[in-house]
Amino acid sequence: MSVVPPRAPATAGRASLMSAREVRQEIRAGRWRDHTSGLAPLNVQGNVVILPASLASDFLRFCQRNPKPCPLLGVSEPGDPMLPTLGADIDIRSDVPRYRVWRNGELADEPADIAALWQGDLVTFVLGCSFSFEHALIEAGIELRHVRQGRNVAMYRTNIPTAPAGPFHGPLVVSMRPMKAADAIRAVQITARVSAVHGAPVHLGDPALIGITDIARPDFGDPVAIEPDELPVFWACGVTPQAVVMAARPGFCITHAPGYMLVTDWLNRDLPFT
Amino acid sequence: MSVVPPRAPATAGRASLMSAREVRQEIRAGRWRDHTSGLAPLNVQGNVVILPASLASDFLRFCQRNPKPCPLLGVSEPGDPMLPTLGADIDIRSDVPRYRVWRNGELADEPADIAALWQGDLVTFVLGCSFSFEHALIEAGIELRHVRQGRNVAMYRTNIPTAPAGPFHGPLVVSMRPMKAADAIRAVQITARVSAVHGAPVHLGDPALIGITDIARPDFGDPVAIEPDELPVFWACGVTPQAVVMAARPGFCITHAPGYMLVTDWLNRDLPFT
Repeated sequence: MSVVPPRAPATAGRASLMSAREVRQEIRAGRWRDHTSGLAPLNVQGNVVILPASLASDFLRFCQRNPKPCPLLGVSEPGDPMLPTLGADIDIRSDVPRYRVWRNGELADEPADIAALWQGDLVTFVLGCSFSFEHALIEAGIELRHVRQGRNVAMYRTNIPTAPAGPFHGPLVVSMRPMKAADAIRAVQITARVSAVHGAPVHLGDPALIGITDIARPDFGDPVAIEPDELPVFWACGVTPQAVVMAARPGFCITHAPGYMLVTDWLNRDLPFT
Repeated sequence: MSVVPPRAPATAGRASLMSAREVRQEIRAGRWRDHTSGLAPLNVQGNVVILPASLASDFLRFCQRNPKPCPLLGVSEPGDPMLPTLGADIDIRSDVPRYRVWRNGELADEPADIAALWQGDLVTFVLGCSFSFEHALIEAGIELRHVRQGRNVAMYRTNIPTAPAGPFHGPLVVSMRPMKAADAIRAVQITARVSAVHGAPVHLGDPALIGITDIARPDFGDPVAIEPDELPVFWACGVTPQAVVMAARPGFCITHAPGYMLVTDWLNRDLPFT
Protein backbone atom coordinates (compact mmCIF):
# COMPACT_ATOMS: atom_id res chain seq x y z
CA MET A 1 0.00 0.00 0.00
CA SER A 2 1.62 3.28 -1.06
CA VAL A 3 0.94 6.60 0.58
CA VAL A 4 -0.05 9.39 -1.79
CA PRO A 5 1.56 12.61 -0.55
CA PRO A 6 -0.66 15.69 -0.25
CA ARG A 7 -0.51 17.94 -3.32
CA ALA A 8 2.46 20.24 -2.94
CA PRO A 9 2.13 23.94 -3.67
CA ALA A 10 3.73 24.99 -6.97
CA THR A 11 7.25 26.12 -6.17
CA ALA A 12 10.26 26.37 -8.39
CA GLY A 13 11.77 23.24 -6.87
CA ARG A 14 8.70 21.07 -7.29
CA ALA A 15 7.28 22.70 -10.41
CA SER A 16 9.39 20.61 -12.75
CA LEU A 17 7.63 17.51 -11.40
CA MET A 18 4.26 18.76 -12.68
CA SER A 19 2.84 17.48 -15.94
CA ALA A 20 2.09 19.96 -18.70
CA ARG A 21 -1.62 19.69 -17.85
CA GLU A 22 -0.92 20.38 -14.18
CA VAL A 23 1.26 23.37 -15.11
CA ARG A 24 -1.60 24.82 -17.15
CA GLN A 25 -4.07 24.17 -14.31
CA GLU A 26 -1.81 26.05 -11.87
CA ILE A 27 -1.46 28.94 -14.33
CA ARG A 28 -5.20 28.98 -15.10
CA ALA A 29 -6.00 29.10 -11.37
CA GLY A 30 -3.60 32.03 -10.91
CA ARG A 31 -1.29 30.06 -8.63
CA TRP A 32 1.69 30.10 -11.02
CA ARG A 33 2.67 33.62 -12.09
CA ASP A 34 6.36 33.14 -12.86
CA HIS A 35 8.14 32.40 -16.18
CA THR A 36 7.88 28.86 -17.53
CA SER A 37 11.55 28.00 -18.06
CA GLY A 38 12.22 24.53 -16.62
CA LEU A 39 8.52 23.63 -16.17
CA ALA A 40 7.48 20.24 -17.61
CA PRO A 41 10.95 19.99 -19.18
CA LEU A 42 10.08 17.13 -21.54
CA ASN A 43 7.25 19.16 -23.06
CA VAL A 44 7.29 21.62 -25.94
CA GLN A 45 6.68 25.25 -24.99
CA GLY A 46 5.53 27.78 -27.54
CA ASN A 47 5.65 31.48 -28.42
CA VAL A 48 2.14 32.96 -28.74
CA VAL A 49 0.82 35.58 -31.18
CA ILE A 50 -2.90 36.41 -31.24
CA LEU A 51 -4.14 38.56 -34.14
CA PRO A 52 -7.48 39.62 -35.64
CA ALA A 53 -8.62 37.31 -38.45
CA SER A 54 -8.11 40.16 -40.95
CA LEU A 55 -4.32 39.82 -40.44
CA ALA A 56 -4.21 36.06 -39.93
CA SER A 57 -3.76 35.14 -43.57
CA ASP A 58 -0.85 37.58 -43.99
CA PHE A 59 0.79 36.30 -40.80
CA LEU A 60 0.33 32.65 -41.81
CA ARG A 61 1.99 33.42 -45.14
CA PHE A 62 4.81 35.22 -43.32
CA CYS A 63 5.42 32.13 -41.15
CA GLN A 64 5.30 29.84 -44.18
CA ARG A 65 7.94 31.96 -45.90
CA ASN A 66 10.19 32.23 -42.83
CA PRO A 67 10.11 28.80 -41.20
CA LYS A 68 13.40 29.17 -39.32
CA PRO A 69 12.33 32.12 -37.12
CA CYS A 70 8.60 31.22 -37.30
CA PRO A 71 8.15 27.45 -36.88
CA LEU A 72 4.35 27.10 -36.63
CA LEU A 73 3.22 24.43 -34.15
CA GLY A 74 -0.49 25.28 -34.18
CA VAL A 75 -3.13 27.75 -35.37
CA SER A 76 -6.60 28.11 -33.82
CA GLU A 77 -9.92 28.39 -35.61
CA PRO A 78 -10.95 32.09 -35.82
CA GLY A 79 -12.64 33.09 -32.57
CA ASP A 80 -11.96 29.75 -30.88
CA PRO A 81 -9.73 30.10 -27.78
CA MET A 82 -9.04 26.34 -27.65
CA LEU A 83 -5.99 24.67 -29.26
CA PRO A 84 -6.95 20.98 -29.28
CA THR A 85 -4.02 19.88 -31.49
CA LEU A 86 -1.56 21.08 -28.81
CA GLY A 87 -3.47 19.90 -25.70
CA ALA A 88 -7.10 18.87 -25.14
CA ASP A 89 -7.82 21.43 -22.41
CA ILE A 90 -5.74 24.41 -23.62
CA ASP A 91 -7.65 27.70 -23.30
CA ILE A 92 -5.40 30.44 -24.62
CA ARG A 93 -7.38 33.06 -22.64
CA SER A 94 -6.00 31.77 -19.31
CA ASP A 95 -3.17 29.27 -19.85
CA VAL A 96 -0.21 31.63 -20.30
CA PRO A 97 1.12 33.15 -17.04
CA ARG A 98 1.69 36.62 -18.44
CA TYR A 99 0.44 38.26 -21.65
CA ARG A 100 1.34 41.45 -23.46
CA VAL A 101 -1.51 43.46 -24.98
CA TRP A 102 -0.50 45.72 -27.86
CA ARG A 103 -2.55 48.57 -29.33
CA ASN A 104 -1.25 50.19 -32.53
CA GLY A 105 2.15 48.63 -31.89
CA GLU A 106 2.48 50.03 -28.35
CA LEU A 107 2.54 47.90 -25.21
CA ALA A 108 -0.77 48.65 -23.42
CA ASP A 109 -0.93 46.07 -20.60
CA GLU A 110 0.62 42.89 -19.13
CA PRO A 111 -2.32 40.94 -17.71
CA ALA A 112 -2.31 37.36 -16.35
CA ASP A 113 -5.60 36.56 -18.12
CA ILE A 114 -7.18 37.83 -21.36
CA ALA A 115 -10.74 36.48 -21.01
CA ALA A 116 -12.12 40.02 -20.82
CA LEU A 117 -10.25 40.97 -24.03
CA TRP A 118 -11.31 38.00 -26.11
CA GLN A 119 -13.03 38.79 -29.41
CA GLY A 120 -14.85 36.55 -31.85
CA ASP A 121 -12.37 37.23 -34.66
CA LEU A 122 -9.07 36.41 -32.91
CA VAL A 123 -6.72 33.75 -34.26
CA THR A 124 -4.00 32.22 -32.08
CA PHE A 125 -0.60 31.23 -33.48
CA VAL A 126 1.74 29.04 -31.44
CA LEU A 127 5.37 28.95 -32.66
CA GLY A 128 8.24 26.70 -31.60
CA CYS A 129 10.63 28.16 -29.03
CA SER A 130 14.30 27.59 -28.36
CA PHE A 131 13.65 25.88 -25.00
CA SER A 132 13.12 22.71 -27.07
CA PHE A 133 16.42 22.79 -28.91
CA GLU A 134 18.30 23.97 -25.84
CA HIS A 135 16.93 20.86 -24.12
CA ALA A 136 18.38 18.73 -26.95
CA LEU A 137 21.77 20.50 -26.68
CA ILE A 138 21.94 20.07 -22.91
CA GLU A 139 20.96 16.40 -23.25
CA ALA A 140 23.91 16.05 -25.65
CA GLY A 141 26.24 17.44 -22.98
CA ILE A 142 26.75 20.88 -24.52
CA GLU A 143 26.87 23.50 -21.78
CA LEU A 144 24.87 26.66 -22.46
CA ARG A 145 26.47 29.52 -20.56
CA HIS A 146 23.33 31.65 -20.22
CA VAL A 147 21.44 28.66 -18.79
CA ARG A 148 24.21 27.93 -16.27
CA GLN A 149 24.27 31.62 -15.30
CA GLY A 150 20.48 31.75 -15.00
CA ARG A 151 20.25 34.52 -17.59
CA ASN A 152 18.17 35.14 -20.67
CA VAL A 153 19.81 34.30 -23.99
CA ALA A 154 21.47 37.19 -25.89
CA MET A 155 19.47 38.29 -28.96
CA TYR A 156 20.39 40.65 -31.80
CA ARG A 157 18.77 42.35 -34.78
CA THR A 158 20.67 41.41 -37.96
CA ASN A 159 20.88 42.73 -41.51
CA ILE A 160 19.38 39.47 -42.82
CA PRO A 161 15.95 40.32 -44.28
CA THR A 162 12.92 38.11 -43.75
CA ALA A 163 10.64 37.29 -46.70
CA PRO A 164 7.75 39.81 -46.38
CA ALA A 165 4.01 39.02 -46.46
CA GLY A 166 1.33 41.74 -46.39
CA PRO A 167 2.27 44.26 -43.68
CA PHE A 168 4.79 41.90 -42.08
CA HIS A 169 8.47 42.50 -42.87
CA GLY A 170 11.70 43.33 -41.11
CA PRO A 171 15.10 41.91 -40.19
CA LEU A 172 15.79 38.49 -38.75
CA VAL A 173 16.41 38.47 -34.99
CA VAL A 174 18.93 35.85 -33.83
CA SER A 175 19.90 34.33 -30.50
CA MET A 176 23.58 33.75 -29.80
CA ARG A 177 25.28 30.99 -27.81
CA PRO A 178 29.10 30.99 -27.45
CA MET A 179 30.70 27.55 -27.97
CA LYS A 180 33.99 25.85 -28.64
CA ALA A 181 34.29 24.83 -32.32
CA ALA A 182 33.81 21.12 -31.62
CA ASP A 183 30.59 21.86 -29.70
CA ALA A 184 29.44 24.26 -32.46
CA ILE A 185 29.89 21.46 -35.02
CA ARG A 186 27.84 19.08 -32.85
CA ALA A 187 25.23 21.78 -32.18
CA VAL A 188 24.75 22.25 -35.94
CA GLN A 189 24.04 18.54 -36.31
CA ILE A 190 21.70 18.39 -33.30
CA THR A 191 19.65 21.50 -34.08
CA ALA A 192 19.53 20.80 -37.84
CA ARG A 193 17.42 17.75 -37.02
CA VAL A 194 14.81 19.78 -35.11
CA SER A 195 13.25 21.82 -37.89
CA ALA A 196 10.21 22.51 -35.66
CA VAL A 197 12.31 24.82 -33.46
CA HIS A 198 14.51 27.06 -35.59
CA GLY A 199 16.70 24.26 -37.06
CA ALA A 200 20.41 24.70 -37.81
CA PRO A 201 22.26 27.95 -37.04
CA VAL A 202 22.04 30.78 -39.57
CA HIS A 203 25.57 32.02 -38.89
CA LEU A 204 28.68 31.45 -36.83
CA GLY A 205 31.88 33.42 -36.37
CA ASP A 206 32.27 37.12 -37.21
CA PRO A 207 29.12 38.97 -35.97
CA ALA A 208 29.77 41.93 -38.32
CA LEU A 209 29.03 39.72 -41.35
CA ILE A 210 25.34 39.67 -40.34
CA GLY A 211 25.19 43.32 -39.29
CA ILE A 212 25.83 42.97 -35.54
CA THR A 213 28.13 45.87 -34.63
CA ASP A 214 28.57 45.27 -30.88
CA ILE A 215 28.31 41.68 -29.68
CA ALA A 216 28.63 42.86 -26.06
CA ARG A 217 25.34 44.79 -26.33
CA PRO A 218 22.45 42.52 -27.35
CA ASP A 219 19.21 44.13 -28.56
CA PHE A 220 17.19 41.77 -26.35
CA GLY A 221 18.08 39.50 -23.41
CA ASP A 222 21.31 39.51 -21.44
CA PRO A 223 24.93 39.83 -22.65
CA VAL A 224 27.13 36.74 -22.33
CA ALA A 225 30.92 36.43 -22.41
CA ILE A 226 32.67 34.81 -25.41
CA GLU A 227 35.93 33.16 -24.37
CA PRO A 228 39.03 33.34 -26.66
CA ASP A 229 38.64 29.67 -27.67
CA GLU A 230 34.96 30.08 -28.55
CA LEU A 231 32.88 31.17 -31.55
CA PRO A 232 29.52 32.92 -31.34
CA VAL A 233 26.86 30.66 -32.92
CA PHE A 234 23.65 32.33 -34.14
CA TRP A 235 20.18 30.81 -34.51
CA ALA A 236 16.99 32.31 -35.94
CA CYS A 237 14.97 33.51 -32.95
CA GLY A 238 11.27 33.44 -32.07
CA VAL A 239 11.50 37.12 -31.20
CA THR A 240 11.55 37.77 -34.97
CA PRO A 241 7.77 37.32 -35.48
CA GLN A 242 7.01 39.48 -32.43
CA ALA A 243 9.32 42.24 -33.70
CA VAL A 244 7.76 41.99 -37.16
CA VAL A 245 4.21 42.12 -35.79
CA MET A 246 5.01 45.12 -33.57
CA ALA A 247 6.59 46.95 -36.50
CA ALA A 248 3.39 46.38 -38.52
CA ARG A 249 1.47 48.17 -35.71
CA PRO A 250 -1.76 46.19 -35.85
CA GLY A 251 -4.67 47.95 -34.12
CA PHE A 252 -4.91 45.10 -31.60
CA CYS A 253 -2.65 42.16 -30.81
CA ILE A 254 -1.81 39.94 -27.88
CA THR A 255 1.43 37.99 -27.31
CA HIS A 256 2.95 36.08 -24.42
CA ALA A 257 5.43 38.03 -22.27
CA PRO A 258 9.03 36.92 -23.06
CA GLY A 259 9.83 33.75 -21.10
CA TYR A 260 6.17 33.21 -20.11
CA MET A 261 5.28 30.54 -22.63
CA LEU A 262 2.41 28.22 -23.44
CA VAL A 263 3.24 24.72 -22.13
CA THR A 264 1.82 22.17 -24.60
CA ASP A 265 1.17 18.43 -24.32
CA TRP A 266 3.63 17.76 -27.16
CA LEU A 267 6.89 16.12 -26.13
CA ASN A 268 10.21 17.55 -27.35
CA ARG A 269 11.19 14.07 -28.50
CA ASP A 270 8.16 13.95 -30.82
CA LEU A 271 8.91 17.22 -32.62
CA PRO A 272 9.10 16.81 -36.40
CA PHE A 273 12.56 15.92 -37.63
CA THR A 274 13.80 16.88 -41.07
CA MET B 1 18.75 0.96 -84.59
CA SER B 2 21.41 2.74 -82.57
CA VAL B 3 25.01 3.04 -83.59
CA VAL B 4 27.53 1.98 -80.98
CA PRO B 5 30.51 4.36 -81.18
CA PRO B 6 33.97 2.82 -81.30
CA ARG B 7 35.72 2.61 -77.94
CA ALA B 8 37.45 5.92 -77.31
CA PRO B 9 41.01 6.02 -75.97
CA ALA B 10 41.27 6.96 -72.30
CA THR B 11 41.78 10.69 -72.17
CA ALA B 12 41.03 13.14 -69.40
CA GLY B 13 37.97 14.44 -71.25
CA ARG B 14 36.42 11.06 -71.92
CA ALA B 15 37.73 9.24 -68.86
CA SER B 16 34.81 10.33 -66.69
CA LEU B 17 32.51 8.37 -69.01
CA MET B 18 34.22 5.08 -68.11
CA SER B 19 32.71 2.76 -65.51
CA ALA B 20 34.76 1.87 -62.44
CA ARG B 21 35.48 -1.53 -63.97
CA GLU B 22 36.66 0.08 -67.21
CA VAL B 23 38.87 2.50 -65.25
CA ARG B 24 40.52 -0.43 -63.47
CA GLN B 25 40.98 -2.29 -66.77
CA GLU B 26 42.73 0.76 -68.28
CA ILE B 27 44.96 1.07 -65.20
CA ARG B 28 45.69 -2.69 -65.10
CA ALA B 29 46.68 -2.59 -68.80
CA GLY B 30 49.05 0.31 -68.15
CA ARG B 31 47.05 2.69 -70.38
CA TRP B 32 45.98 5.02 -67.55
CA ARG B 33 48.93 6.39 -65.55
CA ASP B 34 47.49 9.67 -64.27
CA HIS B 35 45.78 10.51 -60.96
CA THR B 36 42.19 9.31 -60.51
CA SER B 37 40.43 12.58 -59.53
CA GLY B 38 37.24 12.90 -61.59
CA LEU B 39 37.30 9.30 -62.89
CA ALA B 40 34.02 7.35 -62.47
CA PRO B 41 32.72 10.29 -60.41
CA LEU B 42 29.73 8.42 -58.95
CA ASN B 43 32.02 5.73 -57.53
CA VAL B 44 33.83 5.57 -54.21
CA GLN B 45 37.62 5.86 -54.41
CA GLY B 46 39.82 4.66 -51.59
CA ASN B 47 43.16 5.24 -49.88
CA VAL B 48 45.30 2.08 -49.85
CA VAL B 49 47.64 0.76 -47.15
CA ILE B 50 49.27 -2.68 -47.56
CA LEU B 51 51.05 -4.11 -44.51
CA PRO B 52 52.53 -7.43 -43.42
CA ALA B 53 50.07 -9.59 -41.46
CA SER B 54 52.21 -9.12 -38.32
CA LEU B 55 51.12 -5.45 -38.22
CA ALA B 56 47.60 -5.91 -39.56
CA SER B 57 45.92 -6.46 -36.20
CA ASP B 58 47.52 -3.31 -34.72
CA PHE B 59 46.53 -1.25 -37.77
CA LEU B 60 42.96 -2.59 -37.72
CA ARG B 61 42.70 -1.61 -34.07
CA PHE B 62 44.12 1.84 -34.91
CA CYS B 63 41.44 2.33 -37.57
CA GLN B 64 38.69 1.13 -35.23
CA ARG B 65 39.81 3.66 -32.61
CA ASN B 66 40.15 6.54 -35.11
CA PRO B 67 37.18 6.19 -37.47
CA LYS B 68 37.15 9.84 -38.60
CA PRO B 69 40.62 9.85 -40.22
CA CYS B 70 40.56 6.07 -40.91
CA PRO B 71 37.14 5.04 -42.25
CA LEU B 72 37.72 1.38 -43.25
CA LEU B 73 35.90 0.36 -46.43
CA GLY B 74 37.53 -3.05 -46.86
CA VAL B 75 40.26 -5.39 -45.62
CA SER B 76 41.68 -8.31 -47.64
CA GLU B 77 42.36 -11.82 -46.45
CA PRO B 78 46.08 -12.20 -45.57
CA GLY B 79 48.03 -12.91 -48.75
CA ASP B 80 45.00 -12.48 -51.02
CA PRO B 81 45.42 -9.62 -53.53
CA MET B 82 41.69 -9.60 -54.37
CA LEU B 83 39.11 -7.34 -52.67
CA PRO B 84 35.79 -8.93 -53.67
CA THR B 85 33.67 -6.81 -51.29
CA LEU B 86 34.76 -3.65 -53.17
CA GLY B 87 34.62 -5.02 -56.74
CA ALA B 88 34.57 -8.55 -58.13
CA ASP B 89 37.70 -8.16 -60.29
CA ILE B 90 39.86 -5.91 -58.11
CA ASP B 91 43.49 -7.06 -57.98
CA ILE B 92 45.36 -4.71 -55.69
CA ARG B 93 48.68 -5.69 -57.33
CA SER B 94 47.76 -3.87 -60.56
CA ASP B 95 44.62 -1.74 -60.14
CA VAL B 96 46.15 1.44 -58.64
CA PRO B 97 47.91 3.71 -61.20
CA ARG B 98 50.83 4.58 -58.96
CA TYR B 99 52.07 2.98 -55.73
CA ARG B 100 54.59 4.01 -53.12
CA VAL B 101 56.85 1.32 -51.69
CA TRP B 102 58.27 2.06 -48.24
CA ARG B 103 61.17 0.30 -46.53
CA ASN B 104 61.83 1.12 -42.87
CA GLY B 105 59.69 4.25 -43.24
CA GLU B 106 61.62 5.59 -46.23
CA LEU B 107 60.16 5.95 -49.74
CA ALA B 108 61.96 3.31 -51.86
CA ASP B 109 60.06 3.30 -55.17
CA GLU B 110 56.95 4.54 -57.03
CA PRO B 111 55.99 1.67 -59.36
CA ALA B 112 52.83 1.33 -61.47
CA ASP B 113 52.46 -2.35 -60.53
CA ILE B 114 53.43 -4.35 -57.43
CA ALA B 115 53.01 -7.93 -58.71
CA ALA B 116 56.74 -8.57 -58.31
CA LEU B 117 56.62 -7.30 -54.71
CA TRP B 118 53.62 -9.32 -53.57
CA GLN B 119 54.16 -11.55 -50.54
CA GLY B 120 51.97 -14.25 -49.04
CA ASP B 121 51.55 -12.35 -45.75
CA LEU B 122 50.36 -8.96 -47.05
CA VAL B 123 47.02 -7.49 -45.95
CA THR B 124 45.36 -4.67 -47.91
CA PHE B 125 43.38 -1.91 -46.19
CA VAL B 126 41.13 0.40 -48.22
CA LEU B 127 40.00 3.58 -46.45
CA GLY B 128 37.39 6.16 -47.46
CA CYS B 129 38.75 9.28 -49.16
CA SER B 130 37.49 12.85 -49.29
CA PHE B 131 36.63 12.67 -53.01
CA SER B 132 33.32 11.13 -51.85
CA PHE B 133 32.30 13.89 -49.48
CA GLU B 134 33.58 16.60 -51.81
CA HIS B 135 31.24 15.10 -54.41
CA ALA B 136 28.35 15.47 -51.93
CA LEU B 137 29.32 19.09 -51.16
CA ILE B 138 29.58 20.03 -54.84
CA GLU B 139 26.22 18.33 -55.54
CA ALA B 140 24.77 20.55 -52.78
CA GLY B 141 26.06 23.64 -54.60
CA ILE B 142 28.94 24.42 -52.23
CA GLU B 143 31.93 25.62 -54.24
CA LEU B 144 35.28 24.15 -53.23
CA ARG B 145 38.00 26.62 -54.10
CA HIS B 146 40.83 24.08 -54.52
CA VAL B 147 38.66 22.05 -56.91
CA ARG B 148 37.80 25.14 -58.97
CA GLN B 149 41.50 26.08 -59.04
CA GLY B 150 42.53 22.54 -60.00
CA ARG B 151 44.76 22.26 -56.93
CA ASN B 152 45.25 19.68 -54.22
CA VAL B 153 43.44 20.34 -50.93
CA ALA B 154 45.49 22.03 -48.16
CA MET B 155 46.42 19.64 -45.33
CA TYR B 156 47.95 20.31 -41.91
CA ARG B 157 49.38 18.40 -38.95
CA THR B 158 47.45 19.34 -35.79
CA ASN B 159 48.02 18.99 -32.05
CA ILE B 160 44.99 16.66 -31.82
CA PRO B 161 46.30 13.20 -30.84
CA THR B 162 44.96 10.01 -32.38
CA ALA B 163 44.15 7.03 -30.16
CA PRO B 164 47.26 4.80 -30.40
CA ALA B 165 47.33 1.07 -31.16
CA GLY B 166 50.55 -0.99 -31.08
CA PRO B 167 53.28 0.96 -32.93
CA PHE B 168 50.74 3.30 -34.56
CA HIS B 169 50.35 6.75 -33.01
CA GLY B 170 50.72 10.41 -33.95
CA PRO B 171 48.78 13.61 -34.53
CA LEU B 172 45.62 13.96 -36.59
CA VAL B 173 46.18 15.40 -40.07
CA VAL B 174 43.30 17.58 -41.31
CA SER B 175 42.25 18.95 -44.68
CA MET B 176 40.98 22.56 -44.82
CA ARG B 177 38.34 24.12 -47.04
CA PRO B 178 37.53 27.86 -46.69
CA MET B 179 33.79 28.64 -46.68
CA LYS B 180 31.28 31.34 -45.84
CA ALA B 181 29.56 30.60 -42.50
CA ALA B 182 26.25 29.62 -44.10
CA ASP B 183 28.04 27.11 -46.34
CA ALA B 184 30.09 25.83 -43.39
CA ILE B 185 26.84 25.16 -41.49
CA ARG B 186 25.42 23.25 -44.47
CA ALA B 187 28.72 21.42 -44.98
CA VAL B 188 28.59 20.19 -41.36
CA GLN B 189 25.14 18.74 -41.99
CA ILE B 190 26.09 17.15 -45.33
CA THR B 191 29.38 15.59 -44.25
CA ALA B 192 28.04 14.50 -40.84
CA ARG B 193 25.76 12.11 -42.70
CA VAL B 194 28.64 10.42 -44.52
CA SER B 195 30.43 8.68 -41.66
CA ALA B 196 32.19 6.38 -44.19
CA VAL B 197 34.34 9.30 -45.41
CA HIS B 198 35.58 11.35 -42.45
CA GLY B 199 32.13 12.60 -41.30
CA ALA B 200 31.57 16.07 -39.79
CA PRO B 201 34.41 18.60 -39.46
CA VAL B 202 36.69 18.33 -36.42
CA HIS B 203 37.21 22.10 -36.17
CA LEU B 204 36.32 25.43 -37.70
CA GLY B 205 37.58 28.96 -37.12
CA ASP B 206 40.88 29.81 -35.39
CA PRO B 207 43.58 27.41 -36.72
CA ALA B 208 45.83 28.06 -33.69
CA LEU B 209 43.33 26.27 -31.43
CA ILE B 210 44.30 22.95 -33.06
CA GLY B 211 48.01 23.72 -33.26
CA ILE B 212 48.23 25.12 -36.80
CA THR B 213 50.64 28.04 -36.61
CA ASP B 214 50.67 29.19 -40.25
CA ILE B 215 47.52 28.55 -42.28
CA ALA B 216 49.25 29.90 -45.41
CA ARG B 217 51.79 27.04 -45.30
CA PRO B 218 50.09 23.63 -45.36
CA ASP B 219 52.15 20.56 -44.42
CA PHE B 220 50.76 18.68 -47.46
CA GLY B 221 48.93 19.76 -50.61
CA ASP B 222 48.58 23.31 -51.91
CA PRO B 223 47.84 26.57 -50.03
CA VAL B 224 44.43 28.16 -50.63
CA ALA B 225 43.25 31.72 -49.95
CA ILE B 226 40.75 32.42 -47.13
CA GLU B 227 38.62 35.49 -47.90
CA PRO B 228 37.67 37.97 -45.12
CA ASP B 229 34.05 36.69 -45.06
CA GLU B 230 35.12 33.05 -44.78
CA LEU B 231 36.08 30.59 -42.06
CA PRO B 232 38.56 27.74 -42.47
CA VAL B 233 36.73 24.42 -41.95
CA PHE B 234 38.82 21.38 -40.99
CA TRP B 235 38.08 17.70 -41.60
CA ALA B 236 39.96 14.59 -40.47
CA CYS B 237 42.13 13.54 -43.41
CA GLY B 238 43.07 10.20 -44.93
CA VAL B 239 46.71 11.28 -44.88
CA THR B 240 46.60 10.60 -41.11
CA PRO B 241 46.93 6.80 -41.41
CA GLN B 242 49.76 7.14 -43.98
CA ALA B 243 51.63 9.56 -41.70
CA VAL B 244 51.09 7.26 -38.72
CA VAL B 245 52.28 4.18 -40.64
CA MET B 246 55.37 6.00 -41.95
CA ALA B 247 56.20 7.18 -38.42
CA ALA B 248 56.00 3.56 -37.20
CA ARG B 249 58.69 2.68 -39.81
CA PRO B 250 57.50 -0.82 -40.70
CA GLY B 251 60.14 -2.90 -42.46
CA PHE B 252 57.95 -3.11 -45.57
CA CYS B 253 54.79 -1.29 -46.59
CA ILE B 254 53.01 -0.25 -49.79
CA THR B 255 50.54 2.63 -50.19
CA HIS B 256 48.91 4.37 -53.13
CA ALA B 257 50.62 7.57 -54.29
CA PRO B 258 48.61 10.66 -53.16
CA GLY B 259 45.76 11.27 -55.62
CA TYR B 260 46.26 7.90 -57.35
CA MET B 261 43.43 5.99 -55.68
CA LEU B 262 41.71 2.66 -55.96
CA VAL B 263 38.42 3.10 -57.86
CA THR B 264 35.83 0.73 -56.34
CA ASP B 265 32.45 -0.51 -57.57
CA TRP B 266 30.73 1.12 -54.58
CA LEU B 267 28.62 4.17 -55.35
CA ASN B 268 29.01 7.34 -53.28
CA ARG B 269 25.25 7.39 -52.79
CA ASP B 270 25.36 3.95 -51.15
CA LEU B 271 27.98 4.85 -48.54
CA PRO B 272 26.82 4.12 -44.99
CA PHE B 273 24.96 7.00 -43.40
CA THR B 274 24.93 7.57 -39.67
